[in-house]
Amino acid sequence: MSTMEKHGSSSSSNCTETIRGLPEHGKSDLKQHVQVKNPYLQTMEEDILYHFSLSTKTHNLPEMFGDIKFVCVGGSANRMKAFAQFIHQELQLPGNPEEVKDICEGTDRYCMYKVGPVLSISHGMGVPSISIMLHELIKLLHHAHCHDVVLFRLGTSGGVGLPPGTVVITDKAVDYSFRPQFEQVVLGKVITRSTELDEGVASELLQCSLELQNVPSVIGNTMCTHDFYEGQGRLDGALCSFSHEEKLEYLRKAYEAGVRNIEMESTVFAAMCRVCGLKAAVICVTLLNRFEGDQITSSHDVLVDYQQRPQVLVSHFIKKRLGHIV
Amino acid sequence: MSTMEKHGSSSSSNCTETIRGLPEHGKSDLKQHVQVKNPYLQTMEEDILYHFSLSTKTHNLPEMFGDIKFVCVGGSANRMKAFAQFIHQELQLPGNPEEVKDICEGTDRYCMYKVGPVLSISHGMGVPSISIMLHELIKLLHHAHCHDVVLFRLGTSGGVGLPPGTVVITDKAVDYSFRPQFEQVVLGKVITRSTELDEGVASELLQCSLELQNVPSVIGNTMCTHDFYEGQGRLDGALCSFSHEEKLEYLRKAYEAGVRNIEMESTVFAAMCRVCGLKAAVICVTLLNRFEGDQITSSHDVLVDYQQRPQVLVSHFIKKRLGHIV
Repeated sequence: MSTMEKHGSSSSSNCTETIRGLPEHGKSDLKQHVQVKNPYLQTMEEDILYHFSLSTKTHNLPEMFGDIKFVCVGGSANRMKAFAQFIHQELQLPGNPEEVKDICEGTDRYCMYKVGPVLSISHGMGVPSISIMLHELIKLLHHAHCHDVVLFRLGTSGGVGLPPGTVVITDKAVDYSFRPQFEQVVLGKVITRSTELDEGVASELLQCSLELQNVPSVIGNTMCTHDFYEGQGRLDGALCSFSHEEKLEYLRKAYEAGVRNIEMESTVFAAMCRVCGLKAAVICVTLLNRFEGDQITSSHDVLVDYQQRPQVLVSHFIKKRLGHIV
Repeated sequence: MSTMEKHGSSSSSNCTETIRGLPEHGKSDLKQHVQVKNPYLQTMEEDILYHFSLSTKTHNLPEMFGDIKFVCVGGSANRMKAFAQFIHQELQLPGNPEEVKDICEGTDRYCMYKVGPVLSISHGMGVPSISIMLHELIKLLHHAHCHDVVLFRLGTSGGVGLPPGTVVITDKAVDYSFRPQFEQVVLGKVITRSTELDEGVASELLQCSLELQNVPSVIGNTMCTHDFYEGQGRLDGALCSFSHEEKLEYLRKAYEAGVRNIEMESTVFAAMCRVCGLKAAVICVTLLNRFEGDQITSSHDVLVDYQQRPQVLVSHFIKKRLGHIV
């Protein structure tokens, strides 16, 4: 697998951004550092990562985070704490997994746990919420001089034509029109970024799923919307102005465009990781098949089982990469 | 103050939505019920409010919530718990304010506290996150047969040409182009909704601020963006492709358009409340003056003081409405 990022051509929108400064080297033995794309950062005496309650002056970021190789993010704070405890056990690290400590305890915006070379962070729901976290995470990894880091988003989603409980490893993150792009407003102007993810990591994850029991997985496109109800064609929101048939027609079109699940963060996650030279993957379990309904009616225990599947898959990937499993 | 909603003309975008079913009566003695705009809801045997961990089958919503008259929402879970405890004391209700109980304890997506006729809910950061909460809140208020409810968003924001600590009561919630509208994707098509808020409530809030010490307040436009860094013209994100001068030019244009603060939820909040016939106001304190910087450098104590100001203001409003203050 080459460390060279692919430069995908993105569909044209109001303006297409040129991505400069991606690593052009083809040698896999070179360290791939986390790149910020902001010349102003090096002029700042202090950088306050406000929503993490961390700062370059009050915290020794290289010491705290310099050995990070895997960053796992997900919407729910409880789930990302559970993941930290799970990976602690899986990596057989010393200490009590129950005692993992929230590094961001000074704020309730996000929570963050470090377990060996793994960082587990919550990001809330929706593109704006994960985008704030990603800006501060990428700066954190940069300040800490991290290199060769892989990012994973572990989430839940609505399935499109898949049995509930299926894990979707994202091929392309697409918008509401099934385009693999993310529209970012910069000073009142819309620019478009490509949402291509790392194909190598996705294939490796699919291979991991074949080595596991009870983690049925597919590679497919993931549609990212900006709301849970009208944008995803749900008939059970406070507002609904379309018919059941129109909903099904939209889902059918999505299915034909290769969409296998719908969630709310993947496009900006893919776009920002790509611009900053970070290998990234999105792994979401489906909680229901949207062709069959809108409400999440499975029992608590079934949902807990489903939500563990992306965690089990990513844990297997990490253990293989670290040589715990040959 | 009339109970009749004003029908503002919204700027045209891809498609302008006609808002049907707003109350047309002019008599202020008629009860103004919370309206859902979804014919499918009445056909559902059960409605699971998934992100609240509540349901019409497992919870008696009219009994639990029927007397709600004021709903206060804000991004941070800790802050909305603190507000619940504060309003408990202010209304001199029986019981220990420290013991307010999270009604949504079955989930970590949002937290919710009920204190007499006041509901305090957290909504996370950004339009998608608050939008999920609003869909489920509006359905909750509808199922509970609530009427004559006023909604407040109490938040933090970046100030535009104001001293830090100023409270901005929103006149119009505007988008990144300073238009008073919200673009909602419905089944892959963009529709536009008006973001007009209730002028009467805003004036009443400004009057309240004049009766209080230490709550400097203005009425102004509030710009709602979909991210904290590039969209708000910050020079301190992981990505920044513009100059300091370009940033200042954008902020100057915003100021000229009447924008006095920038946050991340007001447009969808205004739009959804309006469609559902709910009187609503947005009250955000400014944590810094964006003409002077991007990072939030004030001390913890100063920030705590600032964040209490919208709470003190809304508490005063509620006490006046309830006749605690004549």
